[in-house]
Amino acid sequence: MDAIDVIITKRDGGELSTEQIRWTIDAYTRGAIAEEQMSSLAMAILLRGMTRREIADWTQAMIDSGERMDWSMLERPTADKHSTGGVGDKITLPLAPLVAACGAYVPQLSGRGLGHTGGTLDKLESIPGWRADLTNAEMLAVIREAGAVVCAAGGGLAPADKKLYALRDVTGTVESIPLIASSIMSKKIAEGTGSLVLDVKVGSGAFMKTTETARELARTMVELGTDAGVRTVALLTAMDRPLGLAVGNALEVAEAVEVLSGGGPADVVELTLRLAREMLEAAGVPGAKDPERALADGSAMDAWRRMIIAQGGDPDAPLPAAPETLEITAGSSGVLATLDAYAVGVAAWRLGAGRARKEDPVSPGAGITLHAKPGDKVEPGRPLMTLHADDPSRFPRAQEALRDAWTIADAPADLLPLVIDRVTA
Amino acid sequence: MDAIDVIITKRDGGELSTEQIRWTIDAYTRGAIAEEQMSSLAMAILLRGMTRREIADWTQAMIDSGERMDWSMLERPTADKHSTGGVGDKITLPLAPLVAACGAYVPQLSGRGLGHTGGTLDKLESIPGWRADLTNAEMLAVIREAGAVVCAAGGGLAPADKKLYALRDVTGTVESIPLIASSIMSKKIAEGTGSLVLDVKVGSGAFMKTTETARELARTMVELGTDAGVRTVALLTAMDRPLGLAVGNALEVAEAVEVLSGGGPADVVELTLRLAREMLEAAGVPGAKDPERALADGSAMDAWRRMIIAQGGDPDAPLPAAPETLEITAGSSGVLATLDAYAVGVAAWRLGAGRARKEDPVSPGAGITLHAKPGDKVEPGRPLMTLHADDPSRFPRAQEALRDAWTIADAPADLLPLVIDRVTA
Repeated sequence: MDAIDVIITKRDGGELSTEQIRWTIDAYTRGAIAEEQMSSLAMAILLRGMTRREIADWTQAMIDSGERMDWSMLERPTADKHSTGGVGDKITLPLAPLVAACGAYVPQLSGRGLGHTGGTLDKLESIPGWRADLTNAEMLAVIREAGAVVCAAGGGLAPADKKLYALRDVTGTVESIPLIASSIMSKKIAEGTGSLVLDVKVGSGAFMKTTETARELARTMVELGTDAGVRTVALLTAMDRPLGLAVGNALEVAEAVEVLSGGGPADVVELTLRLAREMLEAAGVPGAKDPERALADGSAMDAWRRMIIAQGGDPDAPLPAAPETLEITAGSSGVLATLDAYAVGVAAWRLGAGRARKEDPVSPGAGITLHAKPGDKVEPGRPLMTLHADDPSRFPRAQEALRDAWTIADAPADLLPLVIDRVTA
Repeated sequence: MDAIDVIITKRDGGELSTEQIRWTIDAYTRGAIAEEQMSSLAMAILLRGMTRREIADWTQAMIDSGERMDWSMLERPTADKHSTGGVGDKITLPLAPLVAACGAYVPQLSGRGLGHTGGTLDKLESIPGWRADLTNAEMLAVIREAGAVVCAAGGGLAPADKKLYALRDVTGTVESIPLIASSIMSKKIAEGTGSLVLDVKVGSGAFMKTTETARELARTMVELGTDAGVRTVALLTAMDRPLGLAVGNALEVAEAVEVLSGGGPADVVELTLRLAREMLEAAGVPGAKDPERALADGSAMDAWRRMIIAQGGDPDAPLPAAPETLEITAGSSGVLATLDAYAVGVAAWRLGAGRARKEDPVSPGAGITLHAKPGDKVEPGRPLMTLHADDPSRFPRAQEALRDAWTIADAPADLLPLVIDRVTA
């Protein structure tokens, strides 16, 4: 087998055999295929596509490149959720303890933010003392204690994906449905969850800009999960505007705690409840508690506190706040018609909430709080949003990103419904 | 400027600006664009193509990445030839001294073989003492002494191309007309020749398998040369069967010396004379000598001897011969209808005449001598070809490459004419 033959087969529009795919992923993991070879192959895959069989083989080969976790010793069904990433998407934070409080176990491996989308681990790390890196034994202990664990994937899980993901990030080969689907699903299948709900974001703030491409990604991932024996369902949800009112790390933790306290923005509450119900149904929890009740009676909040404490965090410690703020006001009166998720995400990133390179630190306090959402009335001089940063020198470039980020009109604009579609096997 | 933006522009079918191309080639030469980034860009260029303007900018940027030679101090016009590579293509060897003997100066930078095609420098290095690496001053001295010099390109000439060529070789991105054309022409224009004749090979043994793709490559290169002020013309010539009767390093030098002595296979003589006339016409040599006469009166041979001696070689030393030979005989009687150039090239490569990696040495004596060419009558048991190798363990894999390499029929097959077409500005 030869790397150049594999590249040329795909480059010329051919279908890679199971043997070619297994060999490629194994050789790449071992370093026998060079980064520059995988990079031209990734571009050929992006431009030529892959058949369903090729994507399944590619995913399986990435799973086989590392360990596969096993939760069969647990006495309750396991459930997980994965979001393709958006702006203000802190749903995992209230969702994991909520689903645990309703009767499922939630073993969730999460990632860090890159570019304009935030990362769940970055958000949780703004809680003083909280640790993302756990051994498998620690993960199990947190699940038994709290019912849910949210932590970083160990290096042993789908190492081929880890390498390939970092490579795609710098070679313009991120936006390939076969590569995105196999990357997500190899990690989620290797993680050993029994059921999985996918939150595929659609709109300017998401990787998938259109409902069509999002539906194709959702269908591909649901097929991959189902074929691998994981009960998988996907929702297509709106990311043309930010989710909730907070964008940033500590700012989003605070919003998540509001939701767990029975408050929080309507869209965050609605999506959290909807995803919780999907997870409980997919997991098949007998006699599951109603998520709305688990929010109201404090049992979800209890699970959150146990989970944070079990991972070294102090749920009562004050969250870090950025010392500098800048208020942005509306220039005219009317209805806030649109508020572009991508622009808000880029602005928060530039304020310090996100990172440009994997090695960069993030600012826990930086970000944006929104004072109006699309559909709300606005008046000249009234605040639209507040920017938060550690240093005022961050403001000008964030403001630049926000130029043309919203429109004020006489009537609300047609935005995507919060839940656009549901994709099942 | 950002490498990922450049990659994504091309990936999505866009046209790269002059600034983007200049920045990309410069940053790549300096190491600021990583190999894996250039590799995904090369694949995107291969699959998306480039406009004439982009190819011209890309070529110019590669020229500008290094030094540009200047032969304006010479009192005669300069002429060069470049072949896109084939099997048994030793034409440069008799051609350079022949054209010098007719009145032009021939400053030719040549390459080494890779894969199934031979390299001019590898061939000449089978002459004891001959040196491929010359300083610019030595090059000039050889030209003044012999009228022609054939040597390796120094590291200062189009260094971006050198890096990119090595990268394309291992990333499945060789077969792109914009990349092939800009690679060849950046070196030839930087070399400083006043005129250039391109020998674009067509057929199984060539990079271009069809007349159509060869014509597109020829047209692209003629445009690039003409735009850069080099008088450029291209011939499309046959490479469906090997050229001449010898394939291998020393074996081809011997055949070249035969041609310079007034003998040699008809196709090699015909193509050498045709290319010599094209070069003299393109260079515009006043009162040029007729090439046929320069072969007959020994003046081309004199130029050859002076050139070899000036580069440290001994034209009278016996050429190295491989100790092991194996004769391949015909299985039936009739006419040798076809003899596949690619199969013969691969067999010679496996016998040791070529290299799999740049660092590999070649065997000077290894190769194949043909005893019949398409159109010749053959009889069972009569030799078709002789394989030459340093070790008999080389024979089985070479014979494997030759399985189905020829057909014997009642009548000759339709082969490509030796000179298929001529492409001018």
